[in-house]
Amino acid sequence: DGRYTLQAPAQVDGKVFEFKHLIDDPHADWMVENLSAGARVGFDPWLHTVGWVQRVSAKLEAAGAALVPVESNPVDEVWTDRPPLPLSPVLPHDDAHAGRNSEDKRMALGAELEKAGTDAAILSAPDAIAWLLNIRGGDVPRTPLPLSFAVLRSDGQVDLFIDNRKLTPGLERHLGNQVAVQPPDRLGPALDALGQEGKTVRLDSATGPAWIDSRLRAAGATVRSEIDICALPKARKNAAEIAGTRSAHGRDGVAVARFLAWLDRVAPGGGITEIAAEEKLRAMRAELPLYRDDSFDTITGAGPNGAIVHYRVTEETNRLLDPGSLYLVDSGAQYLDGTTDITRTVAVGTPDDEMRRRFTLVLKGHIALATSRFPKGTTGSQLDILARQFLWADGLDYDHGTGHGVGSYLGVHEGPARISKMPNTVALEPGMILSNEPGYYRSGKYGIRIENLVLVRECDSLPNAERPMMEFETLTLAPIDLALVEPSLLSAAEIAWLDGYHARVRSEIGPGLEGEAADWLVQATRPIGG
Amino acid sequence: DGRYTLQAPAQVDGKVFEFKHLIDDPHADWMVENLSAGARVGFDPWLHTVGWVQRVSAKLEAAGAALVPVESNPVDEVWTDRPPLPLSPVLPHDDAHAGRNSEDKRMALGAELEKAGTDAAILSAPDAIAWLLNIRGGDVPRTPLPLSFAVLRSDGQVDLFIDNRKLTPGLERHLGNQVAVQPPDRLGPALDALGQEGKTVRLDSATGPAWIDSRLRAAGATVRSEIDICALPKARKNAAEIAGTRSAHGRDGVAVARFLAWLDRVAPGGGITEIAAEEKLRAMRAELPLYRDDSFDTITGAGPNGAIVHYRVTEETNRLLDPGSLYLVDSGAQYLDGTTDITRTVAVGTPDDEMRRRFTLVLKGHIALATSRFPKGTTGSQLDILARQFLWADGLDYDHGTGHGVGSYLGVHEGPARISKMPNTVALEPGMILSNEPGYYRSGKYGIRIENLVLVRECDSLPNAERPMMEFETLTLAPIDLALVEPSLLSAAEIAWLDGYHARVRSEIGPGLEGEAADWLVQATRPIGG
Repeated sequence: DGRYTLQAPAQVDGKVFEFKHLIDDPHADWMVENLSAGARVGFDPWLHTVGWVQRVSAKLEAAGAALVPVESNPVDEVWTDRPPLPLSPVLPHDDAHAGRNSEDKRMALGAELEKAGTDAAILSAPDAIAWLLNIRGGDVPRTPLPLSFAVLRSDGQVDLFIDNRKLTPGLERHLGNQVAVQPPDRLGPALDALGQEGKTVRLDSATGPAWIDSRLRAAGATVRSEIDICALPKARKNAAEIAGTRSAHGRDGVAVARFLAWLDRVAPGGGITEIAAEEKLRAMRAELPLYRDDSFDTITGAGPNGAIVHYRVTEETNRLLDPGSLYLVDSGAQYLDGTTDITRTVAVGTPDDEMRRRFTLVLKGHIALATSRFPKGTTGSQLDILARQFLWADGLDYDHGTGHGVGSYLGVHEGPARISKMPNTVALEPGMILSNEPGYYRSGKYGIRIENLVLVRECDSLPNAERPMMEFETLTLAPIDLALVEPSLLSAAEIAWLDGYHARVRSEIGPGLEGEAADWLVQATRPIGG
Repeated sequence: DGRYTLQAPAQVDGKVFEFKHLIDDPHADWMVENLSAGARVGFDPWLHTVGWVQRVSAKLEAAGAALVPVESNPVDEVWTDRPPLPLSPVLPHDDAHAGRNSEDKRMALGAELEKAGTDAAILSAPDAIAWLLNIRGGDVPRTPLPLSFAVLRSDGQVDLFIDNRKLTPGLERHLGNQVAVQPPDRLGPALDALGQEGKTVRLDSATGPAWIDSRLRAAGATVRSEIDICALPKARKNAAEIAGTRSAHGRDGVAVARFLAWLDRVAPGGGITEIAAEEKLRAMRAELPLYRDDSFDTITGAGPNGAIVHYRVTEETNRLLDPGSLYLVDSGAQYLDGTTDITRTVAVGTPDDEMRRRFTLVLKGHIALATSRFPKGTTGSQLDILARQFLWADGLDYDHGTGHGVGSYLGVHEGPARISKMPNTVALEPGMILSNEPGYYRSGKYGIRIENLVLVRECDSLPNAERPMMEFETLTLAPIDLALVEPSLLSAAEIAWLDGYHARVRSEIGPGLEGEAADWLVQATRPIGG
């Protein structure tokens, strides 16, 4: 992802490290060019996926070199102040929010394994385990994940490999007697046993560590590389999860509107810093029902810092929001009933014509994606250009994906569907939640991004449709800064979308606002069409 | 391709054959479900590619079955009236039209092999051989291909395996002394020799017959599966080829306009059949300079026959062009300086509102693709939706690709780039010629398709572009039937494109027309904008 190419030279000592562009100058090609025949390249099999090892091995082999797994990672050996593994408590995720109990999920996926002639599936992704067992933890910042591994068997039984100091009272009862809790160091022997019994085991080569694959094969297991068995059912949110996320977005929109109203009042006077703005926004979310945490570290970018796609403010970089600049804020929250992720770009004072034109091009792309209809089987790769086409017409683009999957009180980034330039064969299906976040970044000047979450749903409003079609429902509810919109660049249909969206924002979050914020919302969502 | 699903039941005896949908019910999956463990499935290794065998083998293996190559094809054994192999003469393709002499091509590609540490490349695609050696033949209907195989070595030398009865006087001199002509039955021994010498050989697994791959490996060669070494340089037309195709399209447009003018005059009176129309069109092309043949069998579809995407008229199916119906004609020619391919759909008499709406949706998609700009690295998979988006918004679609590559006095279909829903990693590059042919098919009623060829070129008209952008130049020059255009569905920019295109058609092919056809062209290309 091109976003890190800005960050690396800013944060890493160029006298010690040489920078190579991951996409333009891939590490595997670099190795092929620089290694001599017979070279052996060590890698940590816990830190690389099966798929990565296969791809890079094939390239190195053609050059006569080889990848070799290391027993211990030399970086770990000099990392003397490494913090201990986290031990955050693991809690049940109640059936009302999950919408489906764990036994039902386990039995259905077990039957799927059985039908395919597979004995077991290895779950190496903590969000898959959290989803399958209806549990949540806190081992990963901003994401309620319990670090663990699991083996699901075709009879629906699960071995969960987790440090039992993390288990809260009652959790084992919640898990039930079909889930056996085991210490993490029993994972290896369990893989060995699967191999010794001649089992056929499913493992996702795109996400599974190479270590697991090697251990299974060495023990004699037949490994089938298939997508994580939880990935698709987890991505297809059920009715309770969809109701939950709509509710969470309604509350989140109230916090964001209060924040934007405050910003609009105080920012033009000067003196507001990126950190002060971030803290204000977090405080407004934290008082809401079911709030548990932010869903990622807020990107709070004033002026040129907004052009750093994944900017993380520090005391050293903390900028004032200057008049005449743009302020980009990308933030979200973990609510017990859903995960949010929203980006708004606002003008501080009066924006110039270039800012307004480019914001409007980004907005046109956002609207084109939000209003698209597409047949069953369509992937996010196919839709991506809808969000970029207007920027492309001006010779502009952005170096990140257009949309990522979002979990249900889980990861704010989740697979397997996404909306991006990269080829992807995962079809969008009803119930999937994705972001719609085109942007534009003028390096050293300003950044623009407009991000709403959208829900894939069936489209039943077409009387003459000849095929089953799908469409998006926009979930995120907060005003888009009209000071940055150039109406002459919008079609009548685009203006109608913007006015309709703002009317919905006003009617859905307006009742949650009071005083100045309520007045601001009316003004911020005024129709611009005739 | 969904088009054949209509054709198969219409032309094949359903009492003998059971029909399965190739996409919805793929043959490999069907075999996995219906074969028992230990089953052996024969296949003809000359008729399947390396890639097909790998994909299907992997599926069958998982089910405990296996693919087994047959020594002789049982269909061939009962095919008693099989015609002999063609022996059409092979002619030089002169350097003026080819734009680059064969020695230059051979040396450049040989150096590419050398640089990659590859000793030789197998050429199994006749159009690759025709391009590399600047020769043309006539062994395949409508395509000037000499059936043959070749081996290109890293020193630029070529072994050409071809029946020497096809060689015209002087051809061996044209080929030069770096090209050794050998009988077709020497291919196998030549592959054996490469293996015995321990050579590393490049073969395209997507197009190369499994027979070649097996023979090479059995003899000890290292086979590298990479795209046909001629595919990309052949697809990137040089300046002479581009000048040639522009000239060919200018002449072709004159023939098409004469035909459309004639059709407009006589069709509403009734009595014109699909075959009569096709013959008229061919006659008008055949009198043009440098015409050699049609580039494929004309699709001449009246009314419901237009909904059969690859309809081939016969005396039995031959329909009259009825008033109130649509007539779809997809045709093209092989000129010595370029290959053309154009589809026009015209109203016979007065079309109804549904026809006009759907034609206009197809036109909007055609325009969106024709006017798109896109950065370096963009593939046809990414652009495909531009042509479908307006149909999708109405719940409609078409079951074929949006664009295929087109050769230079070669195949009217050529790879490796294409514009389609299917994931494809080949970037569009300047010089590539593709079709832009969205459609819509109302089964049993009518078919709509609007097809122009387009040339990929660099876009240098964007003063503020931040990235190298590309765009299309439309090559095909013939009126689009305004009787089928509903202007209220078009944006101002779309109307400007249509009027601009028609103005160009008028100025470029108008001088070639006379009398009624000239008058008709002025009317057919009248501006519809204010």
